[in-house]
Amino acid sequence: MTTRPTRQLHLNAFLMGVGHHEAAWRHPRTSSADVTDVRHYQRLAQVAERGRLDSVFFADGLALRGNVRHNALGGLEPLTLLAALAAVTEHIGLIATVSTTYNEPFHVARKFASLDHISGGRAGWNIVTSASEAEAHNFGIERPTHSDRYARATEFLEVVTKLWDSWEDGAILGDHHSGNYADTDRIHTLDHIGPHFRVRGPLNTSRPPQGHPLLVQAGSSEDGKEFAARFAEAVFTAQQTLADGQDFYADLKSRLGRYGRSEDELLILPGISPIIGSTEREALQLERELEELIIPEYGVHQLSNILGVDLSDHPLDARLPEVPPATDGQQSRVKLVTDLAEREQLTLRQLIGRLAGGRGHRVVTGTPEQIADQIEEWFVNGAADGFNIMPPVLPGGLEDFVDHVVPELRLRGLFRTDYEGRTLRQNYGLARPGSIFDQKVPVAS
Amino acid sequence: MTTRPTRQLHLNAFLMGVGHHEAAWRHPRTSSADVTDVRHYQRLAQVAERGRLDSVFFADGLALRGNVRHNALGGLEPLTLLAALAAVTEHIGLIATVSTTYNEPFHVARKFASLDHISGGRAGWNIVTSASEAEAHNFGIERPTHSDRYARATEFLEVVTKLWDSWEDGAILGDHHSGNYADTDRIHTLDHIGPHFRVRGPLNTSRPPQGHPLLVQAGSSEDGKEFAARFAEAVFTAQQTLADGQDFYADLKSRLGRYGRSEDELLILPGISPIIGSTEREALQLERELEELIIPEYGVHQLSNILGVDLSDHPLDARLPEVPPATDGQQSRVKLVTDLAEREQLTLRQLIGRLAGGRGHRVVTGTPEQIADQIEEWFVNGAADGFNIMPPVLPGGLEDFVDHVVPELRLRGLFRTDYEGRTLRQNYGLARPGSIFDQKVPVAS
Ligand SMILES: Cc1cc2nc3c(=O)[nH]c(=O)nc-3n(C[C@H](O)[C@H](O)[C@H](O)COP(=O)(O)O)c2cc1C
Ligand SMILES: Cc1cc2nc3c(=O)[nH]c(=O)nc-3n(C[C@H](O)[C@H](O)[C@H](O)COP(=O)(O)O)c2cc1C
Repeated sequence: MTTRPTRQLHLNAFLMGVGHHEAAWRHPRTSSADVTDVRHYQRLAQVAERGRLDSVFFADGLALRGNVRHNALGGLEPLTLLAALAAVTEHIGLIATVSTTYNEPFHVARKFASLDHISGGRAGWNIVTSASEAEAHNFGIERPTHSDRYARATEFLEVVTKLWDSWEDGAILGDHHSGNYADTDRIHTLDHIGPHFRVRGPLNTSRPPQGHPLLVQAGSSEDGKEFAARFAEAVFTAQQTLADGQDFYADLKSRLGRYGRSEDELLILPGISPIIGSTEREALQLERELEELIIPEYGVHQLSNILGVDLSDHPLDARLPEVPPATDGQQSRVKLVTDLAEREQLTLRQLIGRLAGGRGHRVVTGTPEQIADQIEEWFVNGAADGFNIMPPVLPGGLEDFVDHVVPELRLRGLFRTDYEGRTLRQNYGLARPGSIFDQKVPVAS
Repeated sequence: MTTRPTRQLHLNAFLMGVGHHEAAWRHPRTSSADVTDVRHYQRLAQVAERGRLDSVFFADGLALRGNVRHNALGGLEPLTLLAALAAVTEHIGLIATVSTTYNEPFHVARKFASLDHISGGRAGWNIVTSASEAEAHNFGIERPTHSDRYARATEFLEVVTKLWDSWEDGAILGDHHSGNYADTDRIHTLDHIGPHFRVRGPLNTSRPPQGHPLLVQAGSSEDGKEFAARFAEAVFTAQQTLADGQDFYADLKSRLGRYGRSEDELLILPGISPIIGSTEREALQLERELEELIIPEYGVHQLSNILGVDLSDHPLDARLPEVPPATDGQQSRVKLVTDLAEREQLTLRQLIGRLAGGRGHRVVTGTPEQIADQIEEWFVNGAADGFNIMPPVLPGGLEDFVDHVVPELRLRGLFRTDYEGRTLRQNYGLARPGSIFDQKVPVAS
């Protein structure tokens, strides 16, 4: 149809329990016992790999958020889960969310280094700073402020990357004859001392195959974008309109120069929840079925949480009331939700329906061609380097995407037919970083 | 040969890189690249499962200990690794070491709950308090004292077990019709407030299949034994002589009553490193080959670390000098080493050779029958409920054990020919604990 760019899309399967639609567990296409069943996730990773997607991605939080009365929560910790997925896949990237606010750099560096070894270079870390108060209460502290969380995250990243670098490439000799296993001149302490951390090092897991596992980030505040521009190699984002997507894209890419980075060193991947039917009618039918399974009181409860206002007495069929701007934590999400309600003049009930599908991410309902059109539009018009695919129901929604949308994207020359390399960095077209301790940095010539 | 007890041995494969002998990586039967190769560990877990062993077990520390110049260190973090082993096995238990001194109960509860779900009830936790100073330096704190570490461990266990209990059995309804996923009256906050932790809960991973993953412990100090008597269901220990093994066994079992527990609720599993040959001569040959690969200076360095005395100027062929008793941390290990040197009148070089094999654990060299004799002797004479098998070289040493010693133990009626159940608790013959929050506790009748 339009141009045939040689530039290729990057596609992740963003996986969540039995689907991203919050009523997914009630739909006949899902089985709610799958929430804690590793075989369900293994099958999903294999389906995504069959479609040659770049990676699977798991979000995470450190508290039982939302209302478990009506939502299928209580699933598995992503890092542990991904090791079990590594064992049954060969090429697909494996991205886990881990918070910098409630963890220690040594543990995080080590676990991702281990996952990277286990998967042969397929690990990625979605770095989050944990916005909710509920999470703080599971770790015995007051929730740090937004800027403190990002300050800690920044130092956290400095330490973690140095720990990954602490074994230079080539530090392992394995020389049976001399008995020298490693060249200890190439294994380094950090002696990091900073406001948040004091870490001596070295790491006790050798350098990960990718040098550094892929760094992903998903904050949209000023601090979040600055952090992404400095560290992230992929950014996940929720954008509702092409114009907003383009603004975000241009804004973030323009920040990279400040950190000595070029635009192709960071991929921007908005979320999209595709509700797929072989006809438009069938797609709308699935959308309606899911909407009818929403429990309205639960939606009100969730929305109240996001907005920081109690909406439980607000009439469902009235417009959303004025909401005070968030001062902390959920800034970007609050803005996204209030803009959406304002732009489309939604009632509380309608807004709940829209959020139940993608929690603020874009929901696109239609045929494979219609969905491919949307993906292509954003991709060729400077709003995306690819997408986080958020199937409303799992496994079916991912199978539909892989079997019907992916072939359409291939027909248009937008997506790979086979993996080019073996590591996640290679899927993403990103370079492998050297160690900052590497003594063999080539002399400028 | 002797009696045919119906009581059955419990056997774990204690796995460590390419073998427990510190020079294993230099031996032709190993490949040092295996240290970070998941396929190596997957193969080992499958060999252990073929032998119907109870579990595989990985030790762990949070610093690069020992001297990486001469030892194949830098391997994988055990919990992450075990998830990848779960994916290729069906019955064998999966025990990972995690420290209570440098972790948060919420994370630890969640990761083990996840591993337990992923493995269908095969997770076990070897609880350690991290004795070394090097570990403290990776977490920015001064190493807490021995008694502080055990005080923290005790509160840590209270919190973790309550987090596992926070979803009662039966809390998940999955009722599609009403839209009730869970019965929120059966999911509980803990609101734990103690000297070390404040944790609100509930956990955001549902109750593990085993109720609680199996609790294992390996301290031998007074505090350590008291802790084990209260919480542990299996104890790993290093004992050199039958008499010491019997004393330890009787001592620990006698402490259980204090906590309302019976003797069969805790299994005592000493370590044994079997150097196996089809003839005694062949076994001695392997032992000698390994000894000749030891780097003496490295052995001196390690021994100095264990004993807290610098031995680098001490002549290799002189007896071990007087060593001041340890006041903290390594108490039980120091005693074990000095007793061994004293009892057998060992020179520094000889002591190093003995420790290189099993780091304080018993090394038994001989034919499969001779090794089975030793196992049986301890088992029938009140020194062991089973053993931690520590192959000197891997994978070969484990294959030899499974193919030659296990059949011999079966001939004697001491070891299972097939798994009785599917969970690690069932392998160990231990009950599944209920939730302390369970409202359906039967009324005394
Ligand atoms: C696609 C996407 C995925 C996210 N996943 C997580 C997550 O898994 N866990 C989490 O705590 N926050 C998650 N977030 C929230 C952000 O990482 C970030 O913490 C939050 O937006 C607050 O930061 P900000 O103010 O910089 O936007 C996600 C956001 C987006 C857009
Ligand atoms: C078989 C065995 C395995 C052990 N594994 C570990 C380990 O993996 N990590 C660790 O830090 N300590 C390990 N230890 C040490 C003990 O758990 C304990 O921390 C140490 O002995 C000090 O405690 P204690 O003074 O109570 O003996 C092990 C000890 C034994 C006997």
